[in-house]
Amino acid sequence: MTIDRKKLRWNGWGWVDAPDVLGEHADAVWAWIGRTLRADPLPHTPAMDLADIPLPPVRLDDALLSRLYDMIERDRVKTDPFERAFHARGKGYLDTLYLRAGRIETAPDAVVYPKTADECLAVVCFAADHRIAVIPFGGGSSVVGGVTAVARPDQHGVITIDMTLMDQVLDIDEASLVARVQAGIYGPQLEEYLQARGFTLSHYPQSFEFSTLGGWIAPRGAGHQSNKYGKAEEWLVEATLATPRGFWRTQGFPGSAAGPQFRDLVAGSEGVLGVITEAVVRLHRAPEVKDYRGYLFMDFAAAVAATRELMQRDVPTAMIRLSDPDETYFYAALKTAGEGMDPALRLSIMLVGLEGERGEVEHALARSRATIEEHGGVHMGEELGQTWYKGRFETPYLRDPMLDRGLGVDTLETCTRWSNLLRLHEAVTRAIHDAMSANAAAPGARGICMAHISHCYRDGASLYFTFVFPRDPNDPIAQWWAIKRAASDAVLANGGTISHHHGVGTDHREWYGKEIGPTSLETLRAAKNALDPEGIFNPGKLLP
Amino acid sequence: MTIDRKKLRWNGWGWVDAPDVLGEHADAVWAWIGRTLRADPLPHTPAMDLADIPLPPVRLDDALLSRLYDMIERDRVKTDPFERAFHARGKGYLDTLYLRAGRIETAPDAVVYPKTADECLAVVCFAADHRIAVIPFGGGSSVVGGVTAVARPDQHGVITIDMTLMDQVLDIDEASLVARVQAGIYGPQLEEYLQARGFTLSHYPQSFEFSTLGGWIAPRGAGHQSNKYGKAEEWLVEATLATPRGFWRTQGFPGSAAGPQFRDLVAGSEGVLGVITEAVVRLHRAPEVKDYRGYLFMDFAAAVAATRELMQRDVPTAMIRLSDPDETYFYAALKTAGEGMDPALRLSIMLVGLEGERGEVEHALARSRATIEEHGGVHMGEELGQTWYKGRFETPYLRDPMLDRGLGVDTLETCTRWSNLLRLHEAVTRAIHDAMSANAAAPGARGICMAHISHCYRDGASLYFTFVFPRDPNDPIAQWWAIKRAASDAVLANGGTISHHHGVGTDHREWYGKEIGPTSLETLRAAKNALDPEGIFNPGKLLP
Repeated sequence: MTIDRKKLRWNGWGWVDAPDVLGEHADAVWAWIGRTLRADPLPHTPAMDLADIPLPPVRLDDALLSRLYDMIERDRVKTDPFERAFHARGKGYLDTLYLRAGRIETAPDAVVYPKTADECLAVVCFAADHRIAVIPFGGGSSVVGGVTAVARPDQHGVITIDMTLMDQVLDIDEASLVARVQAGIYGPQLEEYLQARGFTLSHYPQSFEFSTLGGWIAPRGAGHQSNKYGKAEEWLVEATLATPRGFWRTQGFPGSAAGPQFRDLVAGSEGVLGVITEAVVRLHRAPEVKDYRGYLFMDFAAAVAATRELMQRDVPTAMIRLSDPDETYFYAALKTAGEGMDPALRLSIMLVGLEGERGEVEHALARSRATIEEHGGVHMGEELGQTWYKGRFETPYLRDPMLDRGLGVDTLETCTRWSNLLRLHEAVTRAIHDAMSANAAAPGARGICMAHISHCYRDGASLYFTFVFPRDPNDPIAQWWAIKRAASDAVLANGGTISHHHGVGTDHREWYGKEIGPTSLETLRAAKNALDPEGIFNPGKLLP
Repeated sequence: MTIDRKKLRWNGWGWVDAPDVLGEHADAVWAWIGRTLRADPLPHTPAMDLADIPLPPVRLDDALLSRLYDMIERDRVKTDPFERAFHARGKGYLDTLYLRAGRIETAPDAVVYPKTADECLAVVCFAADHRIAVIPFGGGSSVVGGVTAVARPDQHGVITIDMTLMDQVLDIDEASLVARVQAGIYGPQLEEYLQARGFTLSHYPQSFEFSTLGGWIAPRGAGHQSNKYGKAEEWLVEATLATPRGFWRTQGFPGSAAGPQFRDLVAGSEGVLGVITEAVVRLHRAPEVKDYRGYLFMDFAAAVAATRELMQRDVPTAMIRLSDPDETYFYAALKTAGEGMDPALRLSIMLVGLEGERGEVEHALARSRATIEEHGGVHMGEELGQTWYKGRFETPYLRDPMLDRGLGVDTLETCTRWSNLLRLHEAVTRAIHDAMSANAAAPGARGICMAHISHCYRDGASLYFTFVFPRDPNDPIAQWWAIKRAASDAVLANGGTISHHHGVGTDHREWYGKEIGPTSLETLRAAKNALDPEGIFNPGKLLP
């Protein structure tokens, strides 16, 4: 079953009643962070209550709303403040700045919850007829402004289509290991259904609990174990979209030379071409064994070389996660409130996950361990891996308490070739540090910047950066944009893509345009015009 | 170095002076084929000499030709009969029917051989300015009408851009295992360069010796060992095209969530969006060991199940080639002129190729052999595999002597899910047999139809059909279209794609339109209009 919206934080991450992930160490950890950032003691900066926040008026008049009620049962057409606020924005740091400050200008005028593809199509055609923008919305966990409910100036309002009642697995082809699934299904519901039958998709992004199948496909998302199970564009076989031209179904063959494959246009389309209503996806048999363990390196460059070698020798890993020395130190210090590890050691932890048949996991374990040890890695056993595995969805819960304490925190990710990885890592780290200093909340305030390799290929890998800094209480939005701009400029100037799996949304649009260039932009615009001639879909995402 | 055109057959396959692949058994083989097809003795039906064939006049006047000479050295602008005839069509059976009968209506008005991307772009812009169609041409080995030099009615002529002088490896990023290569390089030249440095692309289609990098990418081609090395769209990292809008370079990251990736639009574009001038491709280290061996099955369905299991258990094969009983019998009989195997036995031969590090090949060999034996396969040793490997590029040479003896022969390929594979195999086989009977050259004449699985995925596999029949001397083109139409209808009606790796060209265009539907067609048309507003590129391919 889908998630009751009221159990989720409308302006933050996850369950309303989630426990404090820092547990009994919380006070000591906050003290350590305050000392580290030279912002001691951390201030108390709570978010505004929704009850105290005025929402913009609903721009759809009664006649239009009543037309919507004809298409969708009335209790699935929402115009109440909670629903509008919940769907005003995604879950990026920038989003939380707006929401926590009570700036909900982007609340949609109505939120509809279709139960069928036909209902979805009816709303799309209605919106096209009436110049109303449509925002496709799954879990709403975008961190790049992918679901911000904005309209173009010539449009009369915004309808957000919340897909989460379209949550059924329609068919499993067990011989071919593919399933046809409605796009609004949440991660846990999908995996529960599949695993009960011996199968798995194993797409586990950090947002897994609060994101949907369609939301994974739209921005070309990646799960932790993408080394084995693939990014969304790799496990996507076929997609169906509701567009003002009717349903658009892409080809769905295992392989085909019948022209360009349009599923590749759907993956990455971020809702600007239509609403994904269902998808056919590739499954695996549920793995017999999962083996996660840690290795320690004295030298980050050697660890990167080991990672590269594991990929290029085709050692079948599910995941290689290599933290740089700053991240390795940070997470060790977080557990101990700053005790226990000397930051000057510059250690790097690599976690390697193996999944599959027992014999194959054992074989891959021997190969991976040998390759890692050849590069100077030291085997640390399974505890590090298992600890990470158990807590792998918890880290996002750290953000809200940070925001409550005057801090800013954001992440960004990129990807590049192996030959360029260390250069990109260094350049982006430096750019973020420089921008945090130049935009410090107070003289002497410091920032933390750390990174890990999270998704690996034979030709390169992604880099995932996290940065934490004392928030500028006067203009936190300008502060964030200054840091984000510096980081994005550094990514592009140093041979990285503006996003590896978060997507483009509004936040990366400027750099996306630079990355792909005017010819690709116009080609995408032409494709959009063919599918969405009225320009209703997700204004301002990907394209200006 | 590129291939001297004069050493190639302009109206058939391969080298002019290639030896007879049937060798000393030739006479006995032809007698056996004649008996089998009830067309004994086979007639003598030679092709026309080029010297006896009138070519259509060159439609480009001296002023236009002289403009071309300004852009490209004069000796690289060809208007002589051999060059025009060589570039009139590809290498499909339909092409040979036209060419052998002296029907060279589609000879291009000029053939240019650019040496640089800038020269290529200059010709493209010139053609756009003067409403001249442009045919991108690599090896010209298309078997689906992909390079037929036709113009739209409103165009003033056709220029074929032969890319084979653009044959340089520009850069190898050894750490990232990627290379930047000009698109006109032939297969052997590319592999020689790479293997001398310890690398390989290992894209070995049957046309390998006579096809180019750009020609592999344009139709989403596949090499024999695609299980390991991937289809073109999988090893393609980045492409650059010359278009009337200038050079169009796609993104080239190992992974990216920065919107739809346009390299996926280039793979499968078949020259309708622009001329691919260079590409970045993923390499492998040259394999330490290649192990090819054969297995025998008494039951084709069990052999299909074994193939599926090898894929779904992620046994890392480079190739699994599973011949159905008809093909197994045919190739055994071909070697012995019909002696030695009882067709009633209905045996199936599976060839499994493993490539990589020695230890990994040994490991995969043990796993694959165990899985195959569980499904009733019997190990036949390495000879079958090695024989296939040595002769893997020879089979196309059988066609010209067949055509000289009153026979018709063609191949087609498709792909479907495992759950549908046997049904599709049976339906297409029956449709081809029925059509060969209904369109028989003479009462009682028989046809042969056989198939093999050639490229495998976790969710399905391709099927490659070959059919041989006595040619109708009165209207061989109508006879072929009748069989082709029946086969293509059966492919679509039974859940197959119209092509797995040959592409669409002109021959599959009708079924391609049905396969992808009007919305996808219009989206592709919109993308083409954005990149090629004058519609100069490869008229009639993919799109009507």
